[in-house]
Amino acid sequence: MNESDLHRRIFARSADLAAAFPGVVVGPGDDCAVVKSASGDVLLLKVDQVVEGRHFRPDTPIDLIARKAVARTVSDIAAMGGVPRWGMASGVLPPGYPHADELCARLAHWGRHWGAPMVGGDIATGPEGCPLSLSVSLVGVPHTPRGPVLRSAAMPGDEVWVTGAIGGSLAVDGSGTHLTFEPRLSEGRWLCDTLGPDLHAMIDISDGLGRDAGRVAAASGLRVVIEGARVPLRDGTSDISRAAADGEDYELLFCIAPGTMTKAMVGGAAMTRIGRVEPGTGCALVLASGEHLDAATMGWDH
Amino acid sequence: MNESDLHRRIFARSADLAAAFPGVVVGPGDDCAVVKSASGDVLLLKVDQVVEGRHFRPDTPIDLIARKAVARTVSDIAAMGGVPRWGMASGVLPPGYPHADELCARLAHWGRHWGAPMVGGDIATGPEGCPLSLSVSLVGVPHTPRGPVLRSAAMPGDEVWVTGAIGGSLAVDGSGTHLTFEPRLSEGRWLCDTLGPDLHAMIDISDGLGRDAGRVAAASGLRVVIEGARVPLRDGTSDISRAAADGEDYELLFCIAPGTMTKAMVGGAAMTRIGRVEPGTGCALVLASGEHLDAATMGWDH
Repeated sequence: MNESDLHRRIFARSADLAAAFPGVVVGPGDDCAVVKSASGDVLLLKVDQVVEGRHFRPDTPIDLIARKAVARTVSDIAAMGGVPRWGMASGVLPPGYPHADELCARLAHWGRHWGAPMVGGDIATGPEGCPLSLSVSLVGVPHTPRGPVLRSAAMPGDEVWVTGAIGGSLAVDGSGTHLTFEPRLSEGRWLCDTLGPDLHAMIDISDGLGRDAGRVAAASGLRVVIEGARVPLRDGTSDISRAAADGEDYELLFCIAPGTMTKAMVGGAAMTRIGRVEPGTGCALVLASGEHLDAATMGWDH
Repeated sequence: MNESDLHRRIFARSADLAAAFPGVVVGPGDDCAVVKSASGDVLLLKVDQVVEGRHFRPDTPIDLIARKAVARTVSDIAAMGGVPRWGMASGVLPPGYPHADELCARLAHWGRHWGAPMVGGDIATGPEGCPLSLSVSLVGVPHTPRGPVLRSAAMPGDEVWVTGAIGGSLAVDGSGTHLTFEPRLSEGRWLCDTLGPDLHAMIDISDGLGRDAGRVAAASGLRVVIEGARVPLRDGTSDISRAAADGEDYELLFCIAPGTMTKAMVGGAAMTRIGRVEPGTGCALVLASGEHLDAATMGWDH
């Protein structure tokens, strides 16, 4: 069973959660879960992991491992337009791992850096041959008054935009940004501040522009069309169909009411209109040649 | 560096969290962290893990692996007198692991069972030879009006009590309870309901009665004396000094104002007075022979 099939089963099993548990607003399937405390405070909950050999290499510096573990999860809070408040980290270490204290110190550092101090954690030692793995859980709060920005609320006619540039995050020469990206927290907040209810849907690009745009389409019951020629590519990247599949961009893809974002509003910020939302299903990447690719099947399925 | 040294460093680094981040009430070092939402709702946060070869065996049934992963964390919420509300689970699986869907289904089941539906999660595949590991994060709420019961608030003169019986949780014949224990949620709530502010301190016994009693002593700046002959031992267990070191009991150890719990209140409930709190430091286990053992060094250091 691949990841997509497993996710479908998990989401199907949890489809009744919001009805069965009154504090649950949004269960599994968006960038974060959304829950409500007794007084009605809305909270964002998210967990994500990094595993040696999958998300970093045995020789990746400890600080960058810790940074990526925290930043991945922060990026999901950013994708809801929220801010992180509190974090917890757990890790399974190889036997005799000599960097446990440094790793914990750097996890603590990066949690504070993004406003979510690590208030809890657990370290376990695995058996011989065990890879290093870290799991980071965050509790965040959504933007007030906009509230959590879901991936399921795109509207027909919406413009599709992205922050920054896409592709090359895993460049083999080590210049890739998958370890050093800046989670788009301030951009997510700025979009909520500026567009309010005209900001309809948002997601962070972790598994590839094509696949993640496809997720917005599927969750919203609509079709997303990406115009390849409009997609800003990272320096050193020139193949849009490859860039759209690279993943680990951690840029925000968002859908807004047409005409609501003016040139003056964007100013110097790196935000680019790359496509539109239509009635239908799936996600098409339209190349300059006119060729249509099925973008929703591009990218990582892990 | 062993677990205790690592914990000391983590706690030292996070000593300023409550001052530096206004939403943090209690940081790392208790059974759960305690935080406050915007409207002042108090939340309990906890993460814990299970790793193949450490907390379960390769042939442990999937359902019991999932149950233990959730129950360990629920036990920490119980130790604060709280109830779990929402959960998240992450797991690193061996390549080609055939039980991923069943594992997720059973995690979802046990989350609902204890009132904390799994609202988020992440599954990653590790490299060849990677053990199965699971991390469960819970958000809970403390008892109203008692509030979170910390391990640091024992008072000189307190009586020390435990729920249930101790020892033999890892019995080699498979009769051990480490996979099937019932987290003491209802007992924790009952103690808050019944004793209110006379319930001073509480902890769950995960690393051994001696070591965990020693943690209450250290956190409270006091000495705990356990009378070995009073400690209820699980059937098949007869050696108190071994039982106090076994760990994985998941019973509650709690400190209460002297004379506040009457026989009538306890009724049929399995709760036993086993010791007292005194000025001083450390934790002594006093045997029937009169011998004093240093209980705080017993048990697991992992």
